[in-house]
Amino acid sequence: MNPNLTTDRPTFVTHLECSLTGERYEADRLHGLSRAGRPLLVRYDLDAVKTTLSRDALAARQTDMWRWRELLPVRRTEDVVSLGEIETPLIPIPRSAGSANVWVKDEGRLPTGSFKARGLVMAVAMAKELGVTRIAMPTNGNAGAALAAYATRVGIETIVFCPEDTPEVNVREIAMQGARVWRVNGLIDDCGAIVGKGAAEGRWFDFSTLKEPYRIEGKKTMGLELAAQFGWELPDAIFYPTGGGTGLIGMWKAFDELEALGWIGAKRPRMYAVQASGCAPIVRAFEDGVEHAERWEDAHTVAAGIRVPKAVGDFLILRAVRASGGKALGVGDPAILKAVDEAARKDGLLLCPEGGATLAAYREALRTGEVDEDERVVLFNCATGLKYPMPEAPRTLDRHGAIDFDML
Amino acid sequence: MNPNLTTDRPTFVTHLECSLTGERYEADRLHGLSRAGRPLLVRYDLDAVKTTLSRDALAARQTDMWRWRELLPVRRTEDVVSLGEIETPLIPIPRSAGSANVWVKDEGRLPTGSFKARGLVMAVAMAKELGVTRIAMPTNGNAGAALAAYATRVGIETIVFCPEDTPEVNVREIAMQGARVWRVNGLIDDCGAIVGKGAAEGRWFDFSTLKEPYRIEGKKTMGLELAAQFGWELPDAIFYPTGGGTGLIGMWKAFDELEALGWIGAKRPRMYAVQASGCAPIVRAFEDGVEHAERWEDAHTVAAGIRVPKAVGDFLILRAVRASGGKALGVGDPAILKAVDEAARKDGLLLCPEGGATLAAYREALRTGEVDEDERVVLFNCATGLKYPMPEAPRTLDRHGAIDFDML
Repeated sequence: MNPNLTTDRPTFVTHLECSLTGERYEADRLHGLSRAGRPLLVRYDLDAVKTTLSRDALAARQTDMWRWRELLPVRRTEDVVSLGEIETPLIPIPRSAGSANVWVKDEGRLPTGSFKARGLVMAVAMAKELGVTRIAMPTNGNAGAALAAYATRVGIETIVFCPEDTPEVNVREIAMQGARVWRVNGLIDDCGAIVGKGAAEGRWFDFSTLKEPYRIEGKKTMGLELAAQFGWELPDAIFYPTGGGTGLIGMWKAFDELEALGWIGAKRPRMYAVQASGCAPIVRAFEDGVEHAERWEDAHTVAAGIRVPKAVGDFLILRAVRASGGKALGVGDPAILKAVDEAARKDGLLLCPEGGATLAAYREALRTGEVDEDERVVLFNCATGLKYPMPEAPRTLDRHGAIDFDML
Repeated sequence: MNPNLTTDRPTFVTHLECSLTGERYEADRLHGLSRAGRPLLVRYDLDAVKTTLSRDALAARQTDMWRWRELLPVRRTEDVVSLGEIETPLIPIPRSAGSANVWVKDEGRLPTGSFKARGLVMAVAMAKELGVTRIAMPTNGNAGAALAAYATRVGIETIVFCPEDTPEVNVREIAMQGARVWRVNGLIDDCGAIVGKGAAEGRWFDFSTLKEPYRIEGKKTMGLELAAQFGWELPDAIFYPTGGGTGLIGMWKAFDELEALGWIGAKRPRMYAVQASGCAPIVRAFEDGVEHAERWEDAHTVAAGIRVPKAVGDFLILRAVRASGGKALGVGDPAILKAVDEAARKDGLLLCPEGGATLAAYREALRTGEVDEDERVVLFNCATGLKYPMPEAPRTLDRHGAIDFDML
């Protein structure tokens, strides 16, 4: 049905390199972090891609993630796995944003209802390609659901660890989709410590954010899609809900690759890393002018997806934000909830709390003059709002009684 | 961003006609049911469409619902409303279906998480075009959510009535998106009676399934998409979860229109109307060889979306099923739940119960020889599985204790 999943295509990965030191690593071998303990980045022969693939050829393909295959790491077509990774739509929210130039990129439409599908479909495909049979991962919920779904599909065993207050729907979804799932009395980095310990003992492969090199390649497709959707003229600003930051780092990498192909120019969007005030290590590091972020103690926010006290790719996030002329911005829970409510009630779009955070941050940036009303802005809604608690609402009507139509 | 939403396009609606008597009704006027109390069908000048639009021109457009504009009723571009109505993906489920030729059309990826978005986006756009300011509707949940979202977006007031046991998530979603929502102590047709009474008093416009003519035009796009996705060779069989049946009727209409355009041949899929054994009025009527279905008393099933005791378009469903060489099939709740579980656990795809019903019906049809393993079959998953209860699963791990890695 979809030729992107079945057509053999040339691949262009040359090697991987440490994002901190530039040290080179061989392609087609299983890797975790670099020897410096930092994320590895996948490098491509972009000159060769340039002579192989044109924007027109790309435009003729079905618009899903796998049409970007020449810029992705999977070598063998048989290792492509898919649950329908559509290009996510851009939805204007003129009333709640207060500008007609703001689009929500609705990542909740992806398989398992979140943008985690982008990273995990790629990482699982590569795990399959490289012979991994058992994976463990810490998750605030959505990443675990995506991992479970894709790993199940290719027959890889998975063990998933969530903070104890992870929403019930996430935990059940992970279990339904064939993973073994445990709640842990702690936060995501506490879960990550358990995964790391098991990995060190050789019990499983560690799939933590940025601890394997391929989730970032999947998340990169957010940037590739944006470029195509905006007619190869990137928007002026991107507001991105930032926990581990893979997507922000991935988009930044995508823009560089697209420029190397000659498909876009040197202009970049200002990247705004949005965090919750109750867990804002990147905001603090940005404001302090430092390159690495210290662990945020006593992290708390309704936006569990960005409740990440310590990110292994902190310096990559901060570099991209600074190079772009953007900022790291914190927003409080009341502003997040108000934004979710307004987008639904005024524009009919139900955001997740992390998506609400980007809207709240945009509104504040508009107020302070950080962005102009006529700038083209993309807000990332990273998951379907349906997974999150909504306020109680229903009233009951007795059909056997006399119905007062005036009060309905 | 999406030219389908902003490009002026010619329109081809000529008139409407009663689906029972053929009586003609004027276009561009507000209509409910026909004088015979039956659904109205929209008719187009298909010869003129044929000279205006080619399959190639269509293929060059962004693949969302609105690319079919020449076959849709909305006249004015400014009345187009959208929350990103993507073409939904076809996902193979080889392990749980037991055949590599079975695809799930995952309608849960549409706005508000269900295929109801297709019908309601069209009906709301037409309500806007025709000057409606207040809408009421009965719903088992998903239709109400779609109505609320789109009506909010165009500023139309909505009042929604749900059976009292409608899942909490649906009721809250409807309220969040700006509708007034009431639980009613009864089933969907009891809710419909209240809507009908208010409509008769002139309090609102009645948006019940098939009681206004445009939801079917939106649902029709399922058939249009399938034709395009299958390269203009329709699949051999379609399993469709059937409550009000708008989608089945709509697809059948779409196929006729596509044949009139010369885009497909005379071959049609066998249409299987799938119902729950606990509410199977269409199955009973099919087996009794009658043209209309009597109300099903004491309706009960876990698949609330197909818990529709009486459908106003019953004869249209039965005609399409019979003309196609298909059947109406009932499946029990245990088979539905087992199918949902297997699709998730074996293929990583979380279906809604109604989607599970189509998989259960397919499996049974395969067992009885009603379908062959090598036939190309589409199962409709009409909503995201995330809106539905999932079994309890989580186990808790104490990170402060000694972790026994062997038992994880």
